[in-house]
Amino acid sequence: MMNKIEHIGIAVSGIEKATSVYEALLNTKAYKTESVESEHVNTVFLQSGPNKIELLEATSADSAIAKFIDKRGEGIHHIAFDVDDIEAEMARLKAEGFILLNDKPKPGADNKLVCFVHPKSANGVLIELCQSI
Amino acid sequence: MMNKIEHIGIAVSGIEKATSVYEALLNTKAYKTESVESEHVNTVFLQSGPNKIELLEATSADSAIAKFIDKRGEGIHHIAFDVDDIEAEMARLKAEGFILLNDKPKPGADNKLVCFVHPKSANGVLIELCQSI
Repeated sequence: MMNKIEHIGIAVSGIEKATSVYEALLNTKAYKTESVESEHVNTVFLQSGPNKIELLEATSADSAIAKFIDKRGEGIHHIAFDVDDIEAEMARLKAEGFILLNDKPKPGADNKLVCFVHPKSANGVLIELCQSI
Repeated sequence: MMNKIEHIGIAVSGIEKATSVYEALLNTKAYKTESVESEHVNTVFLQSGPNKIELLEATSADSAIAKFIDKRGEGIHHIAFDVDDIEAEMARLKAEGFILLNDKPKPGADNKLVCFVHPKSANGVLIELCQSI
């Protein structure tokens, strides 16, 4: 089941400046920073009511975030939905015809198992499923 | 005060097909459709936990949605935050240095007063403030 939007991921060029911007925008302090080496990103999390905003900065030109910014500039990179059972939800979406970008859940930031759905399947939106570990 | 993400707006080329896609993705039926003539858009709303997804289709080449899709293709167009007092929040953001795209709140879809913040102010993300009328 898709419980709710867990977070919105925003690709940024400089995470320190972006953190100041989003702290001012949301009128709240970031509560967590984390590097995800497998994805070549630094992340910063801010709470917004029941949801989170995740700022993502590339640490390498190989990062999907670096490629995204090269192509489109800074902006919203993905929407992540909280699910209870990621494998069941992956099977359901696959049966519905969605193209999944990974066959098995993989570790993501913030103690989650994640899977991405191809933007072609969802009107140009990169969708992430995430299940708390 | 920024209470929460009220909705995420997604620019789509064909709203009927997109509605089917997002109904399948979220495993829920759309609960509302609305045309906003002043903005030259048709909208469809789906609930996702405490938030909403708003699909937006242009009804005229003059629409901001048509221009967005021409430039970038379908995808996430804006994030809207629910606020209690839109004029107070506009004043706060202006004082913080954010560039507002309208001087006064204007009527939007779903019985809201809205104001947009320039994407240049927020790392490429178009931010909407919305207050229920």
